[in-house]
Amino acid sequence: MGTRMIWLATPVLAYALSAGADNNPVDEKWWPSEFGAADEVGAANYITPQKRIEAVKLVKRGKTATLGMPYSNYMPAVLGRTFSITIPSGTAATHGPFPWLNSHYGQYFFDEFVAGELGQSGTQWDGLAHGAIGVEGVPGWKDGLYFYNGVRVQDIGTARGFRKNGPEKQPGFFTRGIMLDIAALKGVTRLPKGYAITMADYKAALEKQGIADVGQGDVILFRTGWTGLWKTNHIGRPSGMEKAKTDEQMAKDNAETNDGEAGVHPEVCDYLATKKIAMVGSDTWALEAFPPVIQGKTVYCHMNLLVRRGVTNFENLDLDQLSEDKAYEFLFTWAPLKLVGATGSPGNPIAAY
Amino acid sequence: MGTRMIWLATPVLAYALSAGADNNPVDEKWWPSEFGAADEVGAANYITPQKRIEAVKLVKRGKTATLGMPYSNYMPAVLGRTFSITIPSGTAATHGPFPWLNSHYGQYFFDEFVAGELGQSGTQWDGLAHGAIGVEGVPGWKDGLYFYNGVRVQDIGTARGFRKNGPEKQPGFFTRGIMLDIAALKGVTRLPKGYAITMADYKAALEKQGIADVGQGDVILFRTGWTGLWKTNHIGRPSGMEKAKTDEQMAKDNAETNDGEAGVHPEVCDYLATKKIAMVGSDTWALEAFPPVIQGKTVYCHMNLLVRRGVTNFENLDLDQLSEDKAYEFLFTWAPLKLVGATGSPGNPIAAY
Amino acid sequence: MGTRMIWLATPVLAYALSAGADNNPVDEKWWPSEFGAADEVGAANYITPQKRIEAVKLVKRGKTATLGMPYSNYMPAVLGRTFSITIPSGTAATHGPFPWLNSHYGQYFFDEFVAGELGQSGTQWDGLAHGAIGVEGVPGWKDGLYFYNGVRVQDIGTARGFRKNGPEKQPGFFTRGIMLDIAALKGVTRLPKGYAITMADYKAALEKQGIADVGQGDVILFRTGWTGLWKTNHIGRPSGMEKAKTDEQMAKDNAETNDGEAGVHPEVCDYLATKKIAMVGSDTWALEAFPPVIQGKTVYCHMNLLVRRGVTNFENLDLDQLSEDKAYEFLFTWAPLKLVGATGSPGNPIAAY
Amino acid sequence: MGTRMIWLATPVLAYALSAGADNNPVDEKWWPSEFGAADEVGAANYITPQKRIEAVKLVKRGKTATLGMPYSNYMPAVLGRTFSITIPSGTAATHGPFPWLNSHYGQYFFDEFVAGELGQSGTQWDGLAHGAIGVEGVPGWKDGLYFYNGVRVQDIGTARGFRKNGPEKQPGFFTRGIMLDIAALKGVTRLPKGYAITMADYKAALEKQGIADVGQGDVILFRTGWTGLWKTNHIGRPSGMEKAKTDEQMAKDNAETNDGEAGVHPEVCDYLATKKIAMVGSDTWALEAFPPVIQGKTVYCHMNLLVRRGVTNFENLDLDQLSEDKAYEFLFTWAPLKLVGATGSPGNPIAAY
Repeated sequence: MGTRMIWLATPVLAYALSAGADNNPVDEKWWPSEFGAADEVGAANYITPQKRIEAVKLVKRGKTATLGMPYSNYMPAVLGRTFSITIPSGTAATHGPFPWLNSHYGQYFFDEFVAGELGQSGTQWDGLAHGAIGVEGVPGWKDGLYFYNGVRVQDIGTARGFRKNGPEKQPGFFTRGIMLDIAALKGVTRLPKGYAITMADYKAALEKQGIADVGQGDVILFRTGWTGLWKTNHIGRPSGMEKAKTDEQMAKDNAETNDGEAGVHPEVCDYLATKKIAMVGSDTWALEAFPPVIQGKTVYCHMNLLVRRGVTNFENLDLDQLSEDKAYEFLFTWAPLKLVGATGSPGNPIAAY
Repeated sequence: MGTRMIWLATPVLAYALSAGADNNPVDEKWWPSEFGAADEVGAANYITPQKRIEAVKLVKRGKTATLGMPYSNYMPAVLGRTFSITIPSGTAATHGPFPWLNSHYGQYFFDEFVAGELGQSGTQWDGLAHGAIGVEGVPGWKDGLYFYNGVRVQDIGTARGFRKNGPEKQPGFFTRGIMLDIAALKGVTRLPKGYAITMADYKAALEKQGIADVGQGDVILFRTGWTGLWKTNHIGRPSGMEKAKTDEQMAKDNAETNDGEAGVHPEVCDYLATKKIAMVGSDTWALEAFPPVIQGKTVYCHMNLLVRRGVTNFENLDLDQLSEDKAYEFLFTWAPLKLVGATGSPGNPIAAY
Repeated sequence: MGTRMIWLATPVLAYALSAGADNNPVDEKWWPSEFGAADEVGAANYITPQKRIEAVKLVKRGKTATLGMPYSNYMPAVLGRTFSITIPSGTAATHGPFPWLNSHYGQYFFDEFVAGELGQSGTQWDGLAHGAIGVEGVPGWKDGLYFYNGVRVQDIGTARGFRKNGPEKQPGFFTRGIMLDIAALKGVTRLPKGYAITMADYKAALEKQGIADVGQGDVILFRTGWTGLWKTNHIGRPSGMEKAKTDEQMAKDNAETNDGEAGVHPEVCDYLATKKIAMVGSDTWALEAFPPVIQGKTVYCHMNLLVRRGVTNFENLDLDQLSEDKAYEFLFTWAPLKLVGATGSPGNPIAAY
Repeated sequence: MGTRMIWLATPVLAYALSAGADNNPVDEKWWPSEFGAADEVGAANYITPQKRIEAVKLVKRGKTATLGMPYSNYMPAVLGRTFSITIPSGTAATHGPFPWLNSHYGQYFFDEFVAGELGQSGTQWDGLAHGAIGVEGVPGWKDGLYFYNGVRVQDIGTARGFRKNGPEKQPGFFTRGIMLDIAALKGVTRLPKGYAITMADYKAALEKQGIADVGQGDVILFRTGWTGLWKTNHIGRPSGMEKAKTDEQMAKDNAETNDGEAGVHPEVCDYLATKKIAMVGSDTWALEAFPPVIQGKTVYCHMNLLVRRGVTNFENLDLDQLSEDKAYEFLFTWAPLKLVGATGSPGNPIAAY
């Protein structure tokens, strides 16, 4: 997830909300997980063999969409993160030449050097070692930062990765996916900044799109139109081709991206928490609306879904082809990179329909 | 791909081979591609809607295997590459706290910082901007390094990515996959270093496993047992848990990994080149046997499959669960990260069966 | 050096200039160097033992100034470069604990992980493998990119460093330094964007400051006031302390920094080229004025000093303390990091007076 | 500093030592510093203007030595650290071309991309936010990790740098330096692994070399011969030139480097702690002998000098030229990179004599 700290100090009118407003981190005893005290997988456990067999039946047209956004040095970077791709060669090649019997031929190979907060840049999946709830001075709780399943960060942290809850423990997501196209529902290219998708929107979208509500083990994706702001940033860069937009426009679009977004209302997250979904996702960088709906509860959904229930969260997806194809129900298939002890993963999931 | 330059100077007995031995880089006019002179996708084009619809029928048990290896600082690094994961926190957290209405709670977030030759480390997919054939002083050819579809590297190179043939152009692989378990065929844990899988092995494995030969649009994976050497390196590292192996054993295993491997014989690659497969893969770091079969043709298969025909190549896969489950035929599903202009991608494909 | 490409297309009125305007890259045969055809050191060769013995006599007050700027994630980044510092710890420490005989004590160690274009970020020294002149289709010249001493980049490039002209070959700078405070001369905090320091300014500053002109082996530094724009960016960041400026102000200041700067007029560089100086420096990111003085000769001084004569160039220095102390003449002492085959080096030189 | 954890578990015979053996981290109240409770500079404060004026008198021959080792991908990496230099270009250049009035010319620029634990790789200076003493369950002490001047790491840590004790606070070192050539004293190329330089050695070296003992504000450097093991690793690499040593020899030398070293005996560190020196340094990666002299006090000198007294520590220096020139007393001049909130700095100090 990525938010700008500016919201912490921003006075926001408190939304009268029964669902999440009084729901404090310790108001619920959220571990051990229903999958056992030793579980490091979370909601992906809901995907059963039977679920997978059902899910492949959704592949009817034989069409696929890849849901990842392009990764480049031109993506908007939130929270001061870094993302750099370079091609090492020094005018030659990264490796080679490996000769080919005579002096006229050679084989050469190129690599890319990437540096940055990999699992939290661009299209990014928040794993179970990404978000933590800090508790201090609460009776019955040992002070500390808590990940999914009550794992205290202080007990599992190392400089090179967390000993628990890493993506290498995940079994992958191969299940029914649904996409709610809220931008289309509202008839806009992009929802307004700060707009929070409500339960009413949720139900209206299901009805309009003619699909069944999420069930156990499903992946649900929300489309707001926000990744459209930076989808073409890389085209024509770094040089030599016609650019899709000017440097000035790109800077403006990236600043707008970082400044806020539409998202999902806490009441929807509370609802999804009851449905035993396998994963949630969106075309935004933090799932949640910014400025936030509830004053002082900046990232409510991260707490209630990711930390408490192990429902991981896929951000900055490209849902445009699904929208164009009106593909609202599909086989969703993806597994995170097994980055040992990491907090998340980049990704490019496939939806097949 | 990753080889140690030591083989360049190693005297190797030339294998008498009709298939590849006389096949020089310019002996065939390998572009324009059959998909058109502007194509940047290659063999993934062979996967049709009909192919996808057929492929999902292979999901019978409702089981999945993730084929990626764990990424960690402890992987064997070939060709002097780098791979580093660290968790930025300075004893605190990467981001936060974001407060939660009262002073007892906070939300904290962690990232990982990754640096290295990302698309060419660990489980790695060689894209169409990875391997090039260099030609110098050959009548009818402009001197230069040539990628798939005759793209001259000198014409498309930039410091931040290639203008053509990048992974962001790929449509993804959602198709029939087959796995030939050659280690099992030979009754060994791991094939000997330098062993090259022949057409006879190939046919024997198909027969033993009872599956049909590859067809157009298929993905074919070869299991040699070699990733077993480093599969548990990360367990117990960096500290604090019981290690799966000692530092000394890990150093020895990594050195053995880098020193050579079993692989696919050029005659098999020549055969596959005729079958219009969508992708080839293996549990080795370079697909090909090292020391190489043909003196002076170190990476023949890369030339004939990747560069000439656009058949991309997935390396360092973990094929052990498929072997244990005797899952020889499956739905293979994966798309590379859309690293703009990059040479490859890390990955964790799913096989469903 | 760092410029934004925007100037390439900016129509700028050509300055009538005899010195540099007609001086094309090939109008002078600039190699072999006067230090020999094999020389990889350049103008640092002008510093003799006698020169060093003379230089230490400039240390009269026993005072020192460090001339490096703070390196942080908040520096302005030109040309899309990256600079990231993170502290790996995952709430623990980078290394440790190493126990101390009993269970009450331990020793812990922390590292920083840095990623970026190191020798070309913040305070940066341009070495002899940084700038090259490209020549194509000129009779008597082999096409190619040429570094100092006629070294063709194509002949020495590798993915991991250049085989010649790297900083590891430099002997270090321990010599007389002078600083011309042009901002003070003009009575401004910061010279206007695009202002080019002329020979008249140069002479006026020498006279006002009461120091002798540069001689053989000297280092000369120009103060424009431009690093003042970002000198306090890091103060109070990333969090927890009072910030020296708001995020908005920082973004504005960085944008202003990247958008142009004052610099040295080509006629001054031509003059310096005759004086056999050891190095030139400034408190700007590229030494030269932007927008450039001469249309189409964006970085004239880099060509005439760095490439042709091996006069290296120290950018983004902090010359404020020297200005406050009116320390115009001093012992300058510094050597680049021996980054093998690199293009430059970060630095924090000492001026003693 | 860099040690392999293997020593933690290695049974070593306890050396009978009065000086350090009973000296526990809390046996001394080591803050506030004599420079004040707010001091973040430490022992560099001992260098006065008068000291500097005296120091320049040591420059008699007009000769300089640069004391940094070459930084390359081929350095021995301790503690699993990373160091990577690559040249981004993709066969072209990092930046450019910037045109030059007509189509025959262009200007091109190259950068290097560096990734790694910068201040703790190769020649490295340990700053005041590198080493910490952990205290747990000791009456009168708040549990935590303590840096110099009693700064609790937990109070100043952020993911992007420490709020106190960073290198950007240092004034630089411009003072008398002395070098004790213990390898020469013993008549060896390199002291044996684990050899600890005693007070007797210390006094013998001073006498043999004919120099006065360290005084307040001095820098003292110890030469053991250990950097000789890897000094030429980079020569001829990555390719294309004659290598100074084979890959096998390099791997062996790096392993030997990482496996232990000679160093300074705790009794010498205790002595230096009384002399108010400004800095200590050596041609080893950790100053101290490994395996360590005192069982269970792996890095005693780091505790007693760096943490308690703010005496920073320069490691992996190249002292060979000083040895060859018998330059035992010199002006030492260097300042760390102002890496904000970092733990150390790379460097290439100058000794002038």
